[in-house]
Amino acid sequence: MSSVSKQTYAQRAAQHPNPAAKALLETIERKRTNLSVSVDVTKQEDFFRIIDTVGPYVCLLKTHVDIIEDFEPSVIERLKELSQKHDFLIFEDRKFADIGNTVALQYSAGVHKIASWSHITNAHPVPGPSIISGLKSVGLPLGRGLLLLAEMSTKGSLATGVYTEEAVRMARANRDFVIGFIAQRRMDGVGLREGESTPDEDLLILTPGVGLDTRGDGMGQQYRTPREVIVESGCDVIIVGRGIYGKDNGANVEAVRAQAERYRAEGWKAYRERVDISD
Amino acid sequence: MSSVSKQTYAQRAAQHPNPAAKALLETIERKRTNLSVSVDVTKQEDFFRIIDTVGPYVCLLKTHVDIIEDFEPSVIERLKELSQKHDFLIFEDRKFADIGNTVALQYSAGVHKIASWSHITNAHPVPGPSIISGLKSVGLPLGRGLLLLAEMSTKGSLATGVYTEEAVRMARANRDFVIGFIAQRRMDGVGLREGESTPDEDLLILTPGVGLDTRGDGMGQQYRTPREVIVESGCDVIIVGRGIYGKDNGANVEAVRAQAERYRAEGWKAYRERVDISD
Repeated sequence: MSSVSKQTYAQRAAQHPNPAAKALLETIERKRTNLSVSVDVTKQEDFFRIIDTVGPYVCLLKTHVDIIEDFEPSVIERLKELSQKHDFLIFEDRKFADIGNTVALQYSAGVHKIASWSHITNAHPVPGPSIISGLKSVGLPLGRGLLLLAEMSTKGSLATGVYTEEAVRMARANRDFVIGFIAQRRMDGVGLREGESTPDEDLLILTPGVGLDTRGDGMGQQYRTPREVIVESGCDVIIVGRGIYGKDNGANVEAVRAQAERYRAEGWKAYRERVDISD
Repeated sequence: MSSVSKQTYAQRAAQHPNPAAKALLETIERKRTNLSVSVDVTKQEDFFRIIDTVGPYVCLLKTHVDIIEDFEPSVIERLKELSQKHDFLIFEDRKFADIGNTVALQYSAGVHKIASWSHITNAHPVPGPSIISGLKSVGLPLGRGLLLLAEMSTKGSLATGVYTEEAVRMARANRDFVIGFIAQRRMDGVGLREGESTPDEDLLILTPGVGLDTRGDGMGQQYRTPREVIVESGCDVIIVGRGIYGKDNGANVEAVRAQAERYRAEGWKAYRERVDISD
């Protein structure tokens, strides 16, 4: 495993060139949590109840604002307030996947105006480098960070092999804006050509498909434990959804709180094991 | 070139199993147009002025509703009215690219409720077959059709080789719902394994990156002529954006009308050349 995965989040925060990545690493260290909760619900009421409950336990809150049926501009204001109140960053999981000109508009405009509030967002590398140029033209001046989907955790994913290598090369060529990957393992060294080396590279790995109690959702999603992804695969942030707020959209606030703390503790224990912290 | 590209749109309409594909082929034949206009503007006023102008010349109107800043539910009502008035189908170019459970929500819910009004939409195959299952669970009961992005027209696209072959196999395995591809050439026979044959397969090819006056947009998009895509590459529908309404969002209605008719005529001439219609 590469040297960056043996460094503490604080050490990495001090060195990271991108403001969104630096803020994320600092938040992780400050709150002692590498947990991100993915809030995939369709009603404002459920959305905000879950966020206000899991807020203290997460470094990053992952959203799909485009599934909220009663979305209105005030949703963003309230989300920003909760981000301040609980000290977490926001990651709109938009998975941009269009040509440069279109993604620039999708990122900045529309009813959701993602660039104006989402510290971090993500994109598929499939259109080629122009998708990064398009998003960067909007996000870089705002201090935002972009994650590329170098791999996916679903069965039969086509993001493998040369695809993954090309994704890493695209990230490496845009390190001012691309801060890492949605992936299942570290990408350090992936896609390097002969003679190339990148000793100071710190590309974050955020990993979905994490669960403690189940192995799949019946719709192609596969799950691994926090220890598997943090210790064995060297990932940096675990992303958990239904594992924390269940099938009833987090109606039982105490149960949600207990699960969030459980995943936070498991993720943090795994990190300490990885970097050999024993105090 | 395969036999399907030598058939008329009417012949193909009569045989197609998917209601959205059948309706599209019938519309093409009835209106004598294989032109789709991509309306990529951020204001309702521009959006509806362009649609009302190009409506008579298109079989399919391609939208990005998520870039409309002053979007409100009435936009969908008005879009549906124009679809009736001018006799075209609607294609929300959403490029879904997430896991099954998420895309089902993005397709059905949120402020845009895409499945309720968009006859055709599209998805990237990169997550694997679960993206089709998720979208199909919503779209099939509504008689909708899905296009897969088997290729992209941007520089450095990763949708090539095995990726494209897998996309075609995923389509072939879901022919009740997947009606074809966003691609630059016919996909008949692509990805067939030894001994396999698909004589009755009719997967439509809709092709963006079509222009008569320019070769690129400076953000990675590359252009070909209607004749190149329809005759040489055997595609079925040409998708044109700025080539029709220019950089001023179609302020000059007469100029937009003239360009729409010009592209319609070029696309139809190319089709007649391909299927050898000389009357």
